[in-house]
Amino acid sequence: MNTLINERLERLREVLRREHFAAFIFPTSDPHNSEYTADHWKGREWISGFNGSAGTAVVMQDSAALWTDSRYFLAAEEQLKGTGFQLMKLKVEGTPTIAEWINRQLLAAGSPSSTEVGIDGWCCTANYVQELIGDLRKEGGLTLRTNFDPLPLIWRNRPPVPDAPIERYPQEYAGERTHEKIARIRKALREHHADGMLMAALDDIAWTLNLRGTDVHCNPVFVSYLLISSKDVTLFVNPAKLTPDVSAYLQEEGVAVDRYENVIKGLKEYSEYNILMDPDEVNHTLYRAVTCERVGEESPVKRMKTVKNTAEMAGFRNAMLRDGIAMVKFLKWLKPAVEAGGQTEISVSDRLEALRAEQPLFRGISFDTIAGYQEHGAIVHYEATPATDSVLRPEGLLLLDSGAQYLDGTTDITRTIALGLLTEEQKKVYTLVLKGHIQLQLLQFPDGAAGTQLDAIARSPLWQAGLNYLHGTGHGVGSYLNVHEGPHQIRMEWKPAPLHAGMTVTDEPGIYLAGRFGVRIENTLLVQPAMETECGRFLRFETLTLCPIDTTPVITSLMTPAEIEWLNNYHRIVYEKLSPYLSEDEKNWLVGACKPLSFNNF
Amino acid sequence: MNTLINERLERLREVLRREHFAAFIFPTSDPHNSEYTADHWKGREWISGFNGSAGTAVVMQDSAALWTDSRYFLAAEEQLKGTGFQLMKLKVEGTPTIAEWINRQLLAAGSPSSTEVGIDGWCCTANYVQELIGDLRKEGGLTLRTNFDPLPLIWRNRPPVPDAPIERYPQEYAGERTHEKIARIRKALREHHADGMLMAALDDIAWTLNLRGTDVHCNPVFVSYLLISSKDVTLFVNPAKLTPDVSAYLQEEGVAVDRYENVIKGLKEYSEYNILMDPDEVNHTLYRAVTCERVGEESPVKRMKTVKNTAEMAGFRNAMLRDGIAMVKFLKWLKPAVEAGGQTEISVSDRLEALRAEQPLFRGISFDTIAGYQEHGAIVHYEATPATDSVLRPEGLLLLDSGAQYLDGTTDITRTIALGLLTEEQKKVYTLVLKGHIQLQLLQFPDGAAGTQLDAIARSPLWQAGLNYLHGTGHGVGSYLNVHEGPHQIRMEWKPAPLHAGMTVTDEPGIYLAGRFGVRIENTLLVQPAMETECGRFLRFETLTLCPIDTTPVITSLMTPAEIEWLNNYHRIVYEKLSPYLSEDEKNWLVGACKPLSFNNF
Repeated sequence: MNTLINERLERLREVLRREHFAAFIFPTSDPHNSEYTADHWKGREWISGFNGSAGTAVVMQDSAALWTDSRYFLAAEEQLKGTGFQLMKLKVEGTPTIAEWINRQLLAAGSPSSTEVGIDGWCCTANYVQELIGDLRKEGGLTLRTNFDPLPLIWRNRPPVPDAPIERYPQEYAGERTHEKIARIRKALREHHADGMLMAALDDIAWTLNLRGTDVHCNPVFVSYLLISSKDVTLFVNPAKLTPDVSAYLQEEGVAVDRYENVIKGLKEYSEYNILMDPDEVNHTLYRAVTCERVGEESPVKRMKTVKNTAEMAGFRNAMLRDGIAMVKFLKWLKPAVEAGGQTEISVSDRLEALRAEQPLFRGISFDTIAGYQEHGAIVHYEATPATDSVLRPEGLLLLDSGAQYLDGTTDITRTIALGLLTEEQKKVYTLVLKGHIQLQLLQFPDGAAGTQLDAIARSPLWQAGLNYLHGTGHGVGSYLNVHEGPHQIRMEWKPAPLHAGMTVTDEPGIYLAGRFGVRIENTLLVQPAMETECGRFLRFETLTLCPIDTTPVITSLMTPAEIEWLNNYHRIVYEKLSPYLSEDEKNWLVGACKPLSFNNF
Repeated sequence: MNTLINERLERLREVLRREHFAAFIFPTSDPHNSEYTADHWKGREWISGFNGSAGTAVVMQDSAALWTDSRYFLAAEEQLKGTGFQLMKLKVEGTPTIAEWINRQLLAAGSPSSTEVGIDGWCCTANYVQELIGDLRKEGGLTLRTNFDPLPLIWRNRPPVPDAPIERYPQEYAGERTHEKIARIRKALREHHADGMLMAALDDIAWTLNLRGTDVHCNPVFVSYLLISSKDVTLFVNPAKLTPDVSAYLQEEGVAVDRYENVIKGLKEYSEYNILMDPDEVNHTLYRAVTCERVGEESPVKRMKTVKNTAEMAGFRNAMLRDGIAMVKFLKWLKPAVEAGGQTEISVSDRLEALRAEQPLFRGISFDTIAGYQEHGAIVHYEATPATDSVLRPEGLLLLDSGAQYLDGTTDITRTIALGLLTEEQKKVYTLVLKGHIQLQLLQFPDGAAGTQLDAIARSPLWQAGLNYLHGTGHGVGSYLNVHEGPHQIRMEWKPAPLHAGMTVTDEPGIYLAGRFGVRIENTLLVQPAMETECGRFLRFETLTLCPIDTTPVITSLMTPAEIEWLNNYHRIVYEKLSPYLSEDEKNWLVGACKPLSFNNF
C-alpha cells in the first residue's frame, strides 16, 4: 500500500464530497497545453504517483483509475501498485472511455448523489472539454464543472509557477527577426479572416519572440501568453523573469509587456472584431473568456515554426555534428566499460550526458534518457531509477534513446547496441527494424503528403514477420526548442498536417517483446525537395543525425541491395564528417563501426 | 455552342428568377445517395451535358460551373465545350469551393437581388446540406433553400422512376436469410442505443432483403426505403415492382410493404423513442422529417455487408473463374484481331462483353467498360464514344478496365495490354505500376488497419520515379451488388473504416501521362487472416481475380526477386484453375501468357 498517495486521495475525496463531485479528472497538462509541464502543474503525477509523460487520472469516492498509452503500460503497472488506481490501457480492446467508466462506477454503486464531474478548465484545451462534455452527456447525462480546482486546497508544498529569467535567442541561430515573424503571422491571420490571435503554446511564443527559458524540464520555454492584434503585441509574463536585456529587446521589436495574471483582462479588453484561438491549444477557461467573435482554427504559427529557415537548418547540421562526436566517444567507451564491469543503465546515461556537456553550445538534455537493457528495452518509455537500474553485462541489447539541447539545435537519436552475444531472435528483430528505418529514409514522396500516408513504409518489413509497434514512427523536432514539435507526425493514426520541405521529422521504428528485449533505431531527418515532374513535386529526406548504426546484429541475407547501399553510404558520410574532430584512437574505432557490409544474398 | 444545353439553361434561369434564387446546385445523386443513379435522377447530366459519374453543377443567371475530380478533367473539358459551363477541377490549387465561387460571382455582379441558393433536399445527404449551409454562411452570409426542385418544371420527357420487377436472390448465393440479417441489424442498433433505423442506401436494402433489381445501370438494386423498428420491418416500394414470388418471400421473412411515396408518413408515424439515420446516407429532407430522437451515426449495415460469408466468398471464387475464362478467350483473340485490322476501342469492348455473356450466371456488366488506347488510356474514366473511338494498331498500350455481374459475384479487373512495340517509357511505367500492384498483394498488415495506412505500399515504387496517380488504390466490391462498395477503401485521403477478414478490395495503381498513354493493373482481393502473434492479429490478401498479367512489357531488372516470385506463382495458379475449362488452342495460348519470368538482376 502506497500511504503517500492514499493520504492525498483521502484529502481530495473530502473536498469532492464537500463540493458534490461524483468524480474529478486530472489530465496531463498546464494552461498552455504543454506536453511536458513545469512541476507546478504536475497534478496528475502528484495525485496518482504515475510519472509518465502522458496519462489521465480520475478519482471517485470509492475508486480511481489512470488512463495511459502503450509506451507506459509496464511502467504504470509498477508505479500504481498500492495506490488504489486501476490502470486503463488506451487503444486496447475493452478499455472503457473515462465517461463510460465513471458512469459504470456510478451505476454499480446504486443511485448516485451527484452526477457532476469536475476538471480544471485552465488545464485542458477548449476542444478537450467540448468532447468530454459530449461523452459525459451520452453516459447517463453526466455533467461537467470546469471552474473549480481542488489542488490549491490539498497540495501542500506545491512547487510555485517558475520565475526563472528569460534569455534572448541570438539572431545567427534564429535566422529571422521577431518583427518579421509577427508580420508573417499577421498576414496569415488576415488569410484566416482574423484580426488577431491569442498564443498559449509556450514553444510558439518562444519561437515568435526569439526568446528562450528554463521553466520546463528539457524544454527551453518560459511560462507566458502572447496576444497579437492588428496594432499591438502584448506578452503576459511574470516581470521578474525579464532581464534588462530582454526588456530592451522586446521594446525594440514592438512587444508590450503585462503581468501573466492579466491575460483574461487583456482578452476582455481586446477591442477588435474577432480573434483566432486554436481550440486544440488554448485552455477552456481562456477560450470562453473572450467577448468578441472567435475564429476557432489551427494556429498558423505551428506550421510556420516547423519549416526551418537557412540559419536553423545550418544550426541543426552543426548541432548534429557535435552530438555525433559525443555519441562516438560514448560508443567507443561503452563496450570495454561494460566488459570491465560495474556499469548500469544509469551510469552509462550519466556518462553520455557528461560527454555531450563537453561539447560547445550544450544547454542540457532534450528529454530524459531512455537506457533500457534487455527486458527493460521492451518498456517503451523506460526511465531507470535506482530501484530498477540494471547492471549491464557483455551480452544482449541496450536500447538507448537520448538527445541534447544545443544553442543551435535540438537532437534526438536512438541506437540499440549489441553488448555481446545476441540470440537469433534479437538479430532478426534488429535487422527488420533497421530495414523499416532505412526504407523510410529511402522514400521519395509527393509534396504535401501526410505522415500517416508514409507510416506503413517503416512498418511493412515488421508486419511481414507478424511484428508491429504501437507508437508513432516520427515527430517533428524544434530548433533549440521542444524535442516533440507538431503538428506533422508520421504515425498510424490520422494526422492531416502535410509534410513540406524544411520540416524536421524523426524516423524511429521499434519492436518491444515484453520480458525479453526491445529494439529501436532513430535518426532525425530534414525534408528536402527532390524533383518536380508532370505528376507534381516530390520530397525526400536528408539524414541529419551523424552516428554509426550497430551493424554487428545485422543479418545481411534479410537486407535488400538498396538497404545495404544506404547503410554503407550513411556510414561513409558519418566517417567523413566526424573523423576530422576525433583522436586517432576514436578514428580507428569509427573506421570499424563504419565498415561497409557486403551483399551476399545470391 | 451547345444549343440543347443552352436552351435548358434558359428555361432553368427563368424559373430561378421567378423564385428569386441567386444560384441552384445540382449534385450527382438521388434520394438514396447512390453513386450511380437511375436516369430519372440524372439532373446534373441533363442540365450540363457532362455524363461522368461524379460532378456538381451550379447555375447562376450569368454563369454556370461544374466541379469534378481528376478522373474526369479531360472528359469534362470536352463535354462542356459550348455549354457555358466553366470546369472547376477539384483538389487542384486555386479551385474555389462552390460557396466561394457563388459569392465571387455575386460580388463581381455588384449588389445582388438575392443571396439565396437552392438545392433539392431530396437529392443530397443530410451531412452534405449541413456542410453546405456552413460554407455558404461563411461566404457573405449566403442562405440555402432545400424545398424546391426546378427539374419537374423544365425537364420535358424526363425518364420516370423505374418500375422494373424485383427478383429474389437465392439463399445458396446470399448465405444468410433475411430474418437472420435483420436480427443482426437489431442487435447492432441496440449497441448504438437505437430502437430502429431508416435504410436509404439501395445496395444495403438489396443485401438485407436478399432481393435484387434492375433500376440502376450496372447496379442490381431497386428503388425503395426500408424502415426497421424493434417490432416491424417495412419496405417502401412501388407495388408494381413486386412479383407474387417476392411478395410471398417478404411476408415469410416478416417484412411489410408500403408505397414508396409513403416513407415520410411512415417516418412520422414511427412511434419508438429514437431512430438511427446515417447522415451520410439519408437525404436531407427525410433526415429532417422525423419527430422522434435521431441517432446520427454510420449505418451498421454498411460494415456487415462488406464482410462476406462463406457462400459469398465461394460465389466470388466461382464468378472469378468464369470471368477469367472469358478474359482469356478475349485476350487470346485480341492481338491477332488487332493485327488483322479494323478493331476499335468500342468493338473490342463489345467482343469482351459478348464473351462474358456466354458464361453461366452472367447478368450484365458491372460498370461501363473503359477501353483506352494509347493517349485515351491517360483519361482515367474514359468511355469511348463513336466520335472518339480509336482504331487499334499493333503497337502501344490498351488500358482495359471492365467487370461483370454474375449471379454469384461481381468482378472488376483492369489489364493494360501491349498490342505490339512499346516505347522504353511505356515499359518502365508499366513495370513500376506492376511493382506497386504486386507490393500491395504481398503485404501482411495488422487487423483493423485503415486502407489509408496501406495506400503508400502500392504507390512507393511510382513515387521513387517521380510518378503518382490521384485516384484511390482500391475499393470494396459487392456480392452481385455495386462494384463500388464502402465504407472501406485504400486511398490517400483518410478513410477510417478498418480492414477485416472477409472484405473484398481492389488493388489498382495506375499512371496517366496526358497525351501519351495510361497504365493501370487491377485485381480484386479478399482479406484473409494471416497470423496471430504477441503483436496482434495480422491479415493478408487472397487474390480473387484469375487472369494473366501481360509480361511482355516487364523490365525484369527493375523487379525484386519477391515480386517476380509473386508474379510467377500467380500465373501458375491462373493456369491451374482456368486450363481445365479451356480448349487446346486456348490452353496453349495460356501456357505462353503464364510463362514464368526469370530473375536476371545479378
